[in-house]
Amino acid sequence: MASPVSEAAGIADLETVRELAAQLRVDSIRSSTSAGSGHPTSSMSAADLLAVLVARHLRYDWDNPKDPANDHLIFSKGHASPLLYSVYKAVGVVTDEELMTGYRRFGQRLQGHPTPVLPWVDVATGSLGQGLPYGVGVAIAGKYLDKSPYRVWVLCGDSEMAEGSMWEALDKAHVYGLSNLIAIVDVNRLGQRGATELGWDLDTYARRAAAFGAHTIEIDGHDVDAIDAALTEADGFDGPVVILAKTIKGDGFSEIADHEGWHGKPLPADMAERAIAELGGERNLRVRGPVPGPSLPRPAAPVNGTVTLPTWEVGTKVATRKAYGEALAALAARGDVVVLDAEVSNSTHAEDFKKVAPERFFEMYIAEQQLVAAAVGLGVRGYVPFASTFAAFLSRAYDFVRMSAISHANIRLSGSHAGVEIGPDGPSQMALEDLASLRAVHGSTVLYPSDGPSTAKLVAAMADLPGISYLRTTRGAYPVLYGPDEQFAPGGSKVLRRSDSDVVTLIGAGVTLHESLAAADLLAADGISARVIDLYSVKPIDTATLAEAARATAGRLVVTEDHWPQGGVGGAVAEALSDGTVPLKLRHLAVTDLPGSGTPEELLDFAGISAKHIAAAARSLLA
Amino acid sequence: MASPVSEAAGIADLETVRELAAQLRVDSIRSSTSAGSGHPTSSMSAADLLAVLVARHLRYDWDNPKDPANDHLIFSKGHASPLLYSVYKAVGVVTDEELMTGYRRFGQRLQGHPTPVLPWVDVATGSLGQGLPYGVGVAIAGKYLDKSPYRVWVLCGDSEMAEGSMWEALDKAHVYGLSNLIAIVDVNRLGQRGATELGWDLDTYARRAAAFGAHTIEIDGHDVDAIDAALTEADGFDGPVVILAKTIKGDGFSEIADHEGWHGKPLPADMAERAIAELGGERNLRVRGPVPGPSLPRPAAPVNGTVTLPTWEVGTKVATRKAYGEALAALAARGDVVVLDAEVSNSTHAEDFKKVAPERFFEMYIAEQQLVAAAVGLGVRGYVPFASTFAAFLSRAYDFVRMSAISHANIRLSGSHAGVEIGPDGPSQMALEDLASLRAVHGSTVLYPSDGPSTAKLVAAMADLPGISYLRTTRGAYPVLYGPDEQFAPGGSKVLRRSDSDVVTLIGAGVTLHESLAAADLLAADGISARVIDLYSVKPIDTATLAEAARATAGRLVVTEDHWPQGGVGGAVAEALSDGTVPLKLRHLAVTDLPGSGTPEELLDFAGISAKHIAAAARSLLA
Repeated sequence: MASPVSEAAGIADLETVRELAAQLRVDSIRSSTSAGSGHPTSSMSAADLLAVLVARHLRYDWDNPKDPANDHLIFSKGHASPLLYSVYKAVGVVTDEELMTGYRRFGQRLQGHPTPVLPWVDVATGSLGQGLPYGVGVAIAGKYLDKSPYRVWVLCGDSEMAEGSMWEALDKAHVYGLSNLIAIVDVNRLGQRGATELGWDLDTYARRAAAFGAHTIEIDGHDVDAIDAALTEADGFDGPVVILAKTIKGDGFSEIADHEGWHGKPLPADMAERAIAELGGERNLRVRGPVPGPSLPRPAAPVNGTVTLPTWEVGTKVATRKAYGEALAALAARGDVVVLDAEVSNSTHAEDFKKVAPERFFEMYIAEQQLVAAAVGLGVRGYVPFASTFAAFLSRAYDFVRMSAISHANIRLSGSHAGVEIGPDGPSQMALEDLASLRAVHGSTVLYPSDGPSTAKLVAAMADLPGISYLRTTRGAYPVLYGPDEQFAPGGSKVLRRSDSDVVTLIGAGVTLHESLAAADLLAADGISARVIDLYSVKPIDTATLAEAARATAGRLVVTEDHWPQGGVGGAVAEALSDGTVPLKLRHLAVTDLPGSGTPEELLDFAGISAKHIAAAARSLLA
Repeated sequence: MASPVSEAAGIADLETVRELAAQLRVDSIRSSTSAGSGHPTSSMSAADLLAVLVARHLRYDWDNPKDPANDHLIFSKGHASPLLYSVYKAVGVVTDEELMTGYRRFGQRLQGHPTPVLPWVDVATGSLGQGLPYGVGVAIAGKYLDKSPYRVWVLCGDSEMAEGSMWEALDKAHVYGLSNLIAIVDVNRLGQRGATELGWDLDTYARRAAAFGAHTIEIDGHDVDAIDAALTEADGFDGPVVILAKTIKGDGFSEIADHEGWHGKPLPADMAERAIAELGGERNLRVRGPVPGPSLPRPAAPVNGTVTLPTWEVGTKVATRKAYGEALAALAARGDVVVLDAEVSNSTHAEDFKKVAPERFFEMYIAEQQLVAAAVGLGVRGYVPFASTFAAFLSRAYDFVRMSAISHANIRLSGSHAGVEIGPDGPSQMALEDLASLRAVHGSTVLYPSDGPSTAKLVAAMADLPGISYLRTTRGAYPVLYGPDEQFAPGGSKVLRRSDSDVVTLIGAGVTLHESLAAADLLAADGISARVIDLYSVKPIDTATLAEAARATAGRLVVTEDHWPQGGVGGAVAEALSDGTVPLKLRHLAVTDLPGSGTPEELLDFAGISAKHIAAAARSLLA
């Protein structure tokens, strides 16, 4: 039963903060016990930290979460969601009833781990080691683009300091001098299944963070005065600050405090009752902290916003990765486009953007997880990020891409050097799984153009696409197929060869479209008329055009791709046409054996995806 | 033209080492120029380091690369392959002719980046930040299992120190006290597109490595005496050693030394000629270093090797993740099985193995990249690793899994907590893309059992499987379907319901098999006879059984999965049956909307993959 609300006037004093901390513990217990699941003990360790932060330091207008001057609060330890939601109750934006009936329930917004279905949450967390990297992206936006004094506060767990991504984040926070980023590490000594690697060895954490360039502060995370002093001190260094707080898991309830075996477990009702009694009972304090200053207008876009895409003569040769770079450079005219790269911008050609808009280009060095995370963070602030590296190396950030979808992030990824077509560098550099893995991301768009104009048009379209979009580009230069007025949109395709006498359809994208066109020529020499489809949009897929071709050519389709056989272009076509509404006799040519080095021509032939293999497959369908 | 071989007797003196270093530079230039691609400058910076190491410190019997007493040499900076291959020439295992005609050529073994097609290469590298993590796995094997004095030497680039995985590796090297691991960082200051983050700031690298627990040594990487002293000093600490070597990219050729713009570029013929002249011309030294002591027999397997798998009564409820743990514990009777987990062993139930064989259980804490890398490293030494975590978090290690396939590694992965079935924790913890992403790994096996006995049998089968195998397990407990004598093998399936009057086929795996069985009951109540297939092997897939069912039920298939719609079970079935040899009218039920929290039942229903939705899809096929 909720007690009457008591509201603190002005900035709460430390005695009120102590009461607030007790309330946050009690509410963390109540909400998780009511839900029958959740992480009360991981919430209780950080309750004092959050009470001080929210009541006295976080500058946030809770009635206006979209105020661009607000500080940002990211729970990198997303499993402490009971604490975050108890904070929301304490500031008055979530009712006690919602906390007690909505937490972890179906159809409700107080999910097991925070997601942006809540207006105060910037990014989804719950995969550990991600909140701080996202925070780096937000802080880069604050310092370099918004030029606004908001701070980014990230509550981190100690267990997640074992994730390399946390050190990628601290490294970039140092490189970019992010004085607006404060990480608070809740060192409660206990992970899921027992003690953490470093236990309460705050000195080692501090030595590591300091070596990575942070200013470090070590405190007792249950000493409200010490916390207040640390959060005050945290403002005004010329780089990131890491506060290492020694805490006790389950602090406040003596039966479980610092006990193993209580990770992720709600208290049974009788224990919850004893815990709440030990904590002094339920409270209904309402406490709000400082509000931000007036929002500053975002710095004006540096140019007038007229985007003029590059054009090429039909038949001239251009690599789609080069077209990507040139299109990005054209998009620089939109003041909201930002570009990130992972130390390969001369290969992805993202450097073309850097040349025209260096102030909106961010080098993430060889740290692909941080590359994607920074893109998400910049997206939180309304920018339109494009992040690129070799397609093979985007696999390094797959968990971040997965989580980006849960964050409802709008980010654009480009992977260059796809498939065996790259030639001599060998299989470590060949993306052969990217189409499958990135198709299997919620709400994603997967594009794979074959020439310069289609690439440029699709890059421009990506800037306005919601969700995660991915563009696969090719290393080598191939002939331009389309004139400057040809239109391309996600979900579309192009029929490049078509006649009433078509008896087979050849489907390709990227390099295999060029091979399919060559195969059509080989077949034509034998009097066999083949339809050829440029399936530049792998997801969403143009089912109507595919179905029409299947009907016109008695289901005879040859799908060819520079990718493993599973889940790529062939899989997408099979999935689209398997419902029995059209005839289907699909021959699928893809890379089956592990390739080595060689020339692109040798490797396309070795993989059985070159023109002669496509023509042979078509003939076998007609036999 | 090759000059006559001059062979050094005994351990080479430092003057000979200097000559060797010059030869390595010359051969790195010659091989890459002959190939027209490759990384001579990144090879030249590390030539002195390798000359000293190979001539005087690496204990390696080049005629017997399988000698278990050999040291290990891993090129984490795999792009310096010209240097590695030049070393192979210098020790006499690769001819000058192979070096000059085989490098980066089609069908040859001297690929652009090293892979284990070469008998002296343990693991494929070329995705930066991976060699050191693999080395940690090999060193763990040496210290804890082989109990052999071999050392693991890893040549690292400076750019790749920006990868978080390198710090996960150093962290674990410290946790496990890996005194047998020596990382040599070639700090040549220049990355692909310009200066690295830290340039020649060796002190910062050293401070970071020391904070992570390594003994550090800073040297001039071109001072052969200093290198020799450092490699001597590196032996005998009680933890890992990191040698930071200040070097010059392109060292030895004044026209390009320390110049930007020469990353990954072979020298044109005229420059190569001048470079070779400046380096004193071609040489044909043959130098071998120390050999290892006699190989020690591997410590005997601790038990007699009789594996007795767990059994359950049909109808009792058991979670497949629990069956995984119990099967692992049974496999402990094989002395070669080792288990790794990422701080969730009480959830994946890998802890069951730890209880019976703690000496072969390795806790990787929350560091999934290192989890997979350590498995690969243990596999290098002939162990049979199983690595487990939440299925969603294996996505963190996707690039490592991709590379493992190129390494020809035999590793077993298990992911628990798949799909919306997990319930209240929400989408961050739900693997919904794992089947697609792991199917798209070269040579992988993807298994998704539905009950205890099938899980146990498949776990046992995985122990003898080559390549990358993946087992998806489920959070909740479901009824045991099979008796103890039922056999399961990768590539198989089970037909659980079958009659001559079947008019539709329901295909499921894991939780959706149980829902499909319930749907068959619903349909049977209406007099509709449905065949039900347990598709526990998603890859390889049992095409014959699927095709027979398609024929028997007029192509009417309902495939249901707890996964996004792309590339999973439905994609696998569509790919398998799209060639037109059988009728196909596939209805695919999968998770399309972003789920939140809820009970498993609520979420299965929300996703449209519960029994009632399956029955409705079957009815619609029959309408």
